[in-house]
Amino acid sequence: MSVTDDYLKNNETYVANFPGELPLPPARKTAVVACMDARVNPYGALGLKEGDSHVIRNAGGIVADDTIRSLAISQHLLGTEEIILIHHTDCGMVTFTDEQFAEILEKETGQRPSWTANAFPDAEQDVRDSIKRITDSPFIKNKGSVRGFVIDVATGKLNEVS
Amino acid sequence: MSVTDDYLKNNETYVANFPGELPLPPARKTAVVACMDARVNPYGALGLKEGDSHVIRNAGGIVADDTIRSLAISQHLLGTEEIILIHHTDCGMVTFTDEQFAEILEKETGQRPSWTANAFPDAEQDVRDSIKRITDSPFIKNKGSVRGFVIDVATGKLNEVS
Repeated sequence: MSVTDDYLKNNETYVANFPGELPLPPARKTAVVACMDARVNPYGALGLKEGDSHVIRNAGGIVADDTIRSLAISQHLLGTEEIILIHHTDCGMVTFTDEQFAEILEKETGQRPSWTANAFPDAEQDVRDSIKRITDSPFIKNKGSVRGFVIDVATGKLNEVS
Repeated sequence: MSVTDDYLKNNETYVANFPGELPLPPARKTAVVACMDARVNPYGALGLKEGDSHVIRNAGGIVADDTIRSLAISQHLLGTEEIILIHHTDCGMVTFTDEQFAEILEKETGQRPSWTANAFPDAEQDVRDSIKRITDSPFIKNKGSVRGFVIDVATGKLNEVS
């Protein structure tokens, strides 16, 4: 049995206890942008429940065009007002450079990607840069609460980046 | 108190019960790609625990370049083998077109974005198209288990797209 099949067994338990229908716009009017890292669980870390918040995630929790696209849809069409960025300790993105990853892919596949890995050397600094990318964007309309954190994957604690 | 501050209060409870350090590579060797929708909770729906799986999310759960970037890092650097795509019923992305969203932004901000919204008229068809984008990509090396689902937001049930 694949892991996917195992997850589908878990889905049966979820359905049996499902709370029921909820509105499309997030009840708590928040959007979370977090790294895809397996140890980062925004539901646990923030106490999110179904219906509360948009959750956007990618390798690094970076703010690139696709993140701005998601946040613009979140704010302009679905009424969210606060943005929460979550990077984390022990992040893989600080262990390689964009050039090194392009070389790995070229060696393994014979092709270089048209996109870059968007690696960063320091999680805290990338949180600051990401906040600036959001506050600089004309397509983000609610900029009153854009806060960034590095979660400690050893303790689960969110530490705010100032 | 902002909602973000309220979430930070929840974080104190999370830290008090945190299970402790886990390895960086996902234990279950899976990567989930899901819509950012507030009602879609991959932790509940699949029974994920901290450390199990990468989770990638954006508006629509689309597979664009940034999704391929995250999946390539997931597979080439962190050893994941199975990919699970999750779209959902009652998705906002089927309610507008790329052109309509660009017009909304132009009207509200005076600028048109360089990116498109990547809206789609049918969630099931976009799951099929997304699976194809993954299996066509040279940068995804493990294509043995790439499965797609539409989760019913009224029941929590994952329905596989064939």
